[in-house]
Amino acid sequence: MFIRTFCCSLFLTIGTAAADPLPSWNDTDAKTRIIAFVDSVTDAGASTYVTPADRIAVFDNDGTLWGEQPVYFQFIFAMDRLADMAAENPAILTSDVLKAAAAGDLKTVAAAGEEGLLEVVTVTHSGLSVDAFEAEVSAWLETARHPTSGRAYDDMVYQPMLELLSYLRDKDFDTYIVSGGGVHFMRAFAEDVYGIPPEQVIGSAGKTSYQVVDGVPTVLKDPGIAFIDDKEGKPVAIDSKIGKRPIFVGGNSDGDFAMLEWATAGDGPRFGMIIHHTDAEREVAYDRESHIGKLVRGLDEGPGRGWLIVDMADDWSRIWP
Amino acid sequence: MFIRTFCCSLFLTIGTAAADPLPSWNDTDAKTRIIAFVDSVTDAGASTYVTPADRIAVFDNDGTLWGEQPVYFQFIFAMDRLADMAAENPAILTSDVLKAAAAGDLKTVAAAGEEGLLEVVTVTHSGLSVDAFEAEVSAWLETARHPTSGRAYDDMVYQPMLELLSYLRDKDFDTYIVSGGGVHFMRAFAEDVYGIPPEQVIGSAGKTSYQVVDGVPTVLKDPGIAFIDDKEGKPVAIDSKIGKRPIFVGGNSDGDFAMLEWATAGDGPRFGMIIHHTDAEREVAYDRESHIGKLVRGLDEGPGRGWLIVDMADDWSRIWP
Repeated sequence: MFIRTFCCSLFLTIGTAAADPLPSWNDTDAKTRIIAFVDSVTDAGASTYVTPADRIAVFDNDGTLWGEQPVYFQFIFAMDRLADMAAENPAILTSDVLKAAAAGDLKTVAAAGEEGLLEVVTVTHSGLSVDAFEAEVSAWLETARHPTSGRAYDDMVYQPMLELLSYLRDKDFDTYIVSGGGVHFMRAFAEDVYGIPPEQVIGSAGKTSYQVVDGVPTVLKDPGIAFIDDKEGKPVAIDSKIGKRPIFVGGNSDGDFAMLEWATAGDGPRFGMIIHHTDAEREVAYDRESHIGKLVRGLDEGPGRGWLIVDMADDWSRIWP
Repeated sequence: MFIRTFCCSLFLTIGTAAADPLPSWNDTDAKTRIIAFVDSVTDAGASTYVTPADRIAVFDNDGTLWGEQPVYFQFIFAMDRLADMAAENPAILTSDVLKAAAAGDLKTVAAAGEEGLLEVVTVTHSGLSVDAFEAEVSAWLETARHPTSGRAYDDMVYQPMLELLSYLRDKDFDTYIVSGGGVHFMRAFAEDVYGIPPEQVIGSAGKTSYQVVDGVPTVLKDPGIAFIDDKEGKPVAIDSKIGKRPIFVGGNSDGDFAMLEWATAGDGPRFGMIIHHTDAEREVAYDRESHIGKLVRGLDEGPGRGWLIVDMADDWSRIWP
């Protein structure tokens, strides 16, 4: 085993020693701190060394790995899907909220609050198998385009974060998503886009059930919410599904505060990171007053807790792939 | 990458080619079928080849990986813990069921049905942090002994199954537990005993919450059930937490039927396996009439579905480590 490990390490070292692991990060303090942390936990001779099995890194998705403005992309999917469903069968639009959503009238849907949102999600995210739902998401990603950038949604991922994910995995970290987004929605693209396999995608979830449908064993998406993976739900989900306290954690809003707080309070070296959307020119600038991705406590308390606040405008040389 | 992979494969091959991977399995049809299946999905040139990422194997725990008679070991833990708690503070025994459980009177507890069981579990499995709970389980395993065998409970694991788990992992399978047992209870020993890390332990779960307790960020075990990982709940949990349909699945009771049915209905090669407790001499013989681990449908329909029924008495040369 020693010879095998040594041999693998040798090839790895030769293959990557020269390259900058984070080429889309400027040479600012952010990049220095990330690399210093990773070095500290992977140096087998250091007191800060962390065994590969405990190198757990978790990341929020919306606003951390991909965009979230002007509204969560999953909700745009829901409205698009509702419009498609209504074109087939207009009778499904049984309320003003559903009619507004199918017409793309975000304002009316937003005015209906959480209940309105849930109604749209229920109609578009239940009554089909998990497999069929994921196929719907994949098909949507092929054709849907973001209203302002014109890009495919799965092309609106942050290049510096893709590099960070790869860098961590090269250093034997397991990289997880821990997001308020739906688990089945995210699994439709997480492996292709982020290199994160289904078993490392943790998210909010609707209820599901197992049934044999016309002789075919099937997991079905049902109406109703099983779990909201946001705020205090994030440490709960990480404990439930991973069972280890991450040593590296990245988010962008106060919905990630509890996860950052819990992870960075563990023993040994810990790295907390908040993506601050400061770049109105290349992306969108928002924080304290935003209706999505609101960030107040993280900005106020994060630096004092030792968390890195990433300034997108200053720290990233490039935003998109 | 190719050179590295090739080099690793070379060392692996040299290291393991000669050894029997399942020495505690007799040379019966069961062993032949298991090895033939594993060969078929790992032969890169075969049409039955399965990529390592999809080599997901799931196993029930109670009665499949370790014993479950005369009663689920976790319930013995609950009764022992209740007795310890009552020795400190007798006032916690607020009902007849709790008094009976603390006195080790299984008959009275059993007569109180599911409600009685839940009462005992609630008192003994909530009101403390996940970390503290897992420490309690570890401490219990150190000293508690099985009523008939006199063995430590974590020494009542099936040696042939330990070998099967190792064999599958050597062949790049991910091995998961998917059990009706509690996830935090099982994590206290799954890595040491089975080599299965926390993130690959799926089980039933009590409610948990995230709170900052006296300044310490903590995940707490609360009263109430969050999820029962049994029967139709097993495919639901596998979909929720792994997001892939396993290709190898092992169980021992009708609580595993849905999981076996769903997994083996997937495309491509699939292996379903039921451990049949036939060995009254070395373990316990039970199936159709048992109050625990009842097995009827699996025996009736399993062979017709191509599932392997493992006959413990005939197929295993050795039961315990």
